[in-house]
Amino acid sequence: MDTSAKPAVTVLGLGNLGRAVAGAFLRNGHPTTVWNRSPDRADALAAEGAAVAATAAGAVAAGDLVIAVVIDHPALDAILDAADGAFAGRVLVNLTSGTPDVARKAAARIAGQGGTYLDAAALAVPETIGTPEATILFSGDPGAYAAHRERLDLLGTGRHVGAAPETASVYDVAVLAGMYGMFGGFFQSVALAESSGITAAEITGVLVGWLAGAAAVLPQFAQEMDVREYDTETSTLNINQWGIDAILAAGKAQGVGFDSLTPLKALIDRQVAEGHGGASLSRAIESIRAEAR
Amino acid sequence: MDTSAKPAVTVLGLGNLGRAVAGAFLRNGHPTTVWNRSPDRADALAAEGAAVAATAAGAVAAGDLVIAVVIDHPALDAILDAADGAFAGRVLVNLTSGTPDVARKAAARIAGQGGTYLDAAALAVPETIGTPEATILFSGDPGAYAAHRERLDLLGTGRHVGAAPETASVYDVAVLAGMYGMFGGFFQSVALAESSGITAAEITGVLVGWLAGAAAVLPQFAQEMDVREYDTETSTLNINQWGIDAILAAGKAQGVGFDSLTPLKALIDRQVAEGHGGASLSRAIESIRAEAR
Ligand SMILES: NC(=O)c1ccc[n+]([C@@H]2O[C@H](COP(=O)([O-])OP(=O)(O)OC[C@H]3O[C@@H](n4cnc5c(N)ncnc54)[C@H](OP(=O)(O)O)[C@@H]3O)[C@@H](O)[C@H]2O)c1
Ligand SMILES: NC(=O)c1ccc[n+]([C@@H]2O[C@H](COP(=O)([O-])OP(=O)(O)OC[C@H]3O[C@@H](n4cnc5c(N)ncnc54)[C@H](OP(=O)(O)O)[C@@H]3O)[C@@H](O)[C@H]2O)c1
Repeated sequence: MDTSAKPAVTVLGLGNLGRAVAGAFLRNGHPTTVWNRSPDRADALAAEGAAVAATAAGAVAAGDLVIAVVIDHPALDAILDAADGAFAGRVLVNLTSGTPDVARKAAARIAGQGGTYLDAAALAVPETIGTPEATILFSGDPGAYAAHRERLDLLGTGRHVGAAPETASVYDVAVLAGMYGMFGGFFQSVALAESSGITAAEITGVLVGWLAGAAAVLPQFAQEMDVREYDTETSTLNINQWGIDAILAAGKAQGVGFDSLTPLKALIDRQVAEGHGGASLSRAIESIRAEAR
Repeated sequence: MDTSAKPAVTVLGLGNLGRAVAGAFLRNGHPTTVWNRSPDRADALAAEGAAVAATAAGAVAAGDLVIAVVIDHPALDAILDAADGAFAGRVLVNLTSGTPDVARKAAARIAGQGGTYLDAAALAVPETIGTPEATILFSGDPGAYAAHRERLDLLGTGRHVGAAPETASVYDVAVLAGMYGMFGGFFQSVALAESSGITAAEITGVLVGWLAGAAAVLPQFAQEMDVREYDTETSTLNINQWGIDAILAAGKAQGVGFDSLTPLKALIDRQVAEGHGGASLSRAIESIRAEAR
């Protein structure tokens, strides 16, 4: 394949996600330079046509678009140390999972050497990279995103979520928090089921269908939260307080030691105590907002 | 409509769910006798052809299949007191939400007067009653369920989940627990998003899609839990411990006071501490099982 006409890309970090990212660029005919701390991880990509750089700095020098995808924040720092000063005039897209403050610091560091930082969050598993199923969130300088969008869109369904460097990682952390909440509920559900001799597969078969319907109401709740109007005729705080209390009572009666619902209950209880029992369940967000003030 | 050929049904309790239930029987041509503590709630159903009984006992006498759907356990007890002895030779289907011990006690009480108790749980809102979208779980004597299934199937997609009287209510409580876990995660997600100026609608748009994918892995986790084999190459306890820690750290750094994930983290931490960090996330159920022993 003649790849000379397409702009080059550099991928730093060839773990599961990094190899999938480099593979997507190679398949689409972009000259791709790769680097990994343990060099042998580049072998298969080299066979597919990737140029293998001996150092991170050398890899960064090879293109104007650099994707870093290493395990964590210290690993990213190690790369930024090794390639210090090499990012002038280049865009670093950081796909490494991290927290908002890590994104802010890395952005400042890249800007300090005349480069541009974009934060990225892969809501995806490596197998889906390069397909529309992979959602990739980006944040940071909108112009830099627009200029490199054609290449970035090769990784999946891309979305620019904000101009601040940390926004993509906030989305990442927030979406994963939602997922872990669901997982906590799943363990709660299995624990209750098992206390009565119902298998995990049996309860999960029913649960998965129910969750799909329940997730469909979240946009309505979100809308209520954003406009701060909590009128409802159906899912009131009173009804949900009663529902959670019934679950906790059942768990206790059945000897289930795990309780993942009390934090949510505390939000609801506070709103009910303040006289809002007839308002929508979504109003429980006000208990969080009150603490954040 | 000539309804004389179809078997009769009685509905006790004409709140939102009870009216939908009675309406489904009426629409399908079953002679339907109704009773409600506040009599005026029967008016619209009477206009559709329902017979209105003056007492709960009188309503029970009118048919071999009686559905009770009142607000809670004390309300159910009030009806069972008022119609004491009337259930001989009849099947009581209890659609009132309750806990497993309530179901066991009600079953014993009905059996004591020569009747049969079936527990039922409506995974549905009133609007879907009478459509396949409404899932109705039943438990208790399989023969009684089979004998009355034709009428019960008019309410939605029916499923008999066990011969013990409490099984349907355990499913109910367990499924709702799973839903509240997801809701807790949703509030966590919005709290993190808002701490960085992202609206609830913005994060929820991304979250809902991600949850659908995450829910799709639950049957695999359930299977691992049931066979107690936790090999995985992807979602290990180590990776998830790191993920939750990162979320908690981000929440702290952003000043988010709400934390719904620590109970799940404790399950994971225990397994990791016992040397199972390379096992599947599903192995966290063993932390619950260890406490239940
Ligand atoms: N896999 C997924 O499904 C997925 C999905 C979304 C986001 N992510 C995120 O993507 C990132 C990478 O994930 P992954 O699955 O690709 O991880 P992985 O397979 O474990 O690979 C980790 C990579 O980090 C490198 N690394 C670790 N410490 C380093 C250091 N001190 N200096 C330089 N390089 C170092 C490793 O190099 P060596 O080969 O030399 O060890 C390897 O290339 C993580 O932040 C992860 O949270 C992953
Ligand atoms: N609505 C739903 O979406 C839904 C979904 C699944 C399960 N459920 C469950 O179904 C049950 C009924 O729900 P609903 O929505 O129909 O409730 P509802 O609209 O509030 O109606 C409550 C019913 O209970 C009766 N009641 C209350 N206390 C009583 C007492 N001491 N003696 C006799 N009757 C009494 C009320 O009679 P009065 O008219 O005289 O007050 C009314 O008929 C609940 O257990 C609920 O959890 C509801």
